[in-house]
Amino acid sequence: MDRIKVIEVKEDILANNDRAAQALRERLHDEKTLLINLMSSPGSGKTTLLSATLDALANELAIGVMEADVDSDVDAYTVQDHGARAVQLHTGGMCHLDAAMCEQGLRELGTDGLDLVFIENVGNLICPAEFDTGAAKRVMILSTPEGHDKPLKYPLMFEVSDLIIVSKIDVAEHFDFRLDELEKNVRLRNPNATIVPLSAKTGEGMDVWLDWLRQEVRSWQA
Amino acid sequence: MDRIKVIEVKEDILANNDRAAQALRERLHDEKTLLINLMSSPGSGKTTLLSATLDALANELAIGVMEADVDSDVDAYTVQDHGARAVQLHTGGMCHLDAAMCEQGLRELGTDGLDLVFIENVGNLICPAEFDTGAAKRVMILSTPEGHDKPLKYPLMFEVSDLIIVSKIDVAEHFDFRLDELEKNVRLRNPNATIVPLSAKTGEGMDVWLDWLRQEVRSWQA
Repeated sequence: MDRIKVIEVKEDILANNDRAAQALRERLHDEKTLLINLMSSPGSGKTTLLSATLDALANELAIGVMEADVDSDVDAYTVQDHGARAVQLHTGGMCHLDAAMCEQGLRELGTDGLDLVFIENVGNLICPAEFDTGAAKRVMILSTPEGHDKPLKYPLMFEVSDLIIVSKIDVAEHFDFRLDELEKNVRLRNPNATIVPLSAKTGEGMDVWLDWLRQEVRSWQA
Repeated sequence: MDRIKVIEVKEDILANNDRAAQALRERLHDEKTLLINLMSSPGSGKTTLLSATLDALANELAIGVMEADVDSDVDAYTVQDHGARAVQLHTGGMCHLDAAMCEQGLRELGTDGLDLVFIENVGNLICPAEFDTGAAKRVMILSTPEGHDKPLKYPLMFEVSDLIIVSKIDVAEHFDFRLDELEKNVRLRNPNATIVPLSAKTGEGMDVWLDWLRQEVRSWQA
């Protein structure tokens, strides 16, 4: 009986959330700020990728970052050190961001003059996939130590993502990680997502990710 | 306003869940079956650890495993191949197991004659920490690729765990993972948890984990 109650409340919330997310997305389109929702498991390398991305694009784009965490501020300080305008969102124990939380964060961050804003979502492959934050694009990171079978186990996350980054590709050999198997598993759920293997540590594959970002910003601002 | 509604419903559920969990724990104590709730991020090596554990304890203990996943059955087949009585629980998109779901799983598994039952919880460092499943002990796995800063970001999981396994210790050097830093971060939240570094692949540290299990089963059945 308890479980039915949860689901009813959640559906109500999701419907309201979808409306709020769509309104936020339209406003950001008018303001020419591309918002990207970056999602992954804990420890997949979101902050490391963001730091390398900020370093590479510093002279081209004005970038903001909203770091979402259950607790701690370490990531916000890290990305700030790499030149981003940054805020830290504490979710108060919640396992995801919704559109209202995201809008509140953007108000604190200030989007004036920003071409690109990243949400570094809470490290979680399940709940964040269910909530539209108002972002224009959803990007997920799967790190090679997690294994190529993850699309079978966390299908919704792989289904809703526009771009799937395979991070820590430099250590893939230590984990029997097979890119062809991953692609096969992704395609069961998502025929269209772009898959980009890279290593923010060695730089391998970073150009593909950076070009994708440049192209998305150009399209959003056209 | 939506967020307040969620929290109220959740508190109600948590109170009911705590009662159900306590009743289940007492029943399992009478039946001399030790239930262990195994939690971690996706891809931390839960199934690999369980397989190695089953191989090592096959001649000593009768062991059951409940595999919980949003989707897929692959893990249940794997642990069954290693000699466990196994069932697969599909959570229907939910990000954790509660006591009622756990009890339902145990009914299907059948606990008759089992000394030890593992719940392999959904891969998630946030939500499963909030729900008492009725297990006697909570064990979490942190894999070295995830980084030693995780107790700062997912504090509740580290706080509620009786034992913290640091898995994939054989590849720690590739990830600047420092065990002393991890221990420092854990102690901020949990002064008592035992920390066991191991590699299910090389066997390093497995004896400490196996001895802990043997001791817990003895105490539970005494």
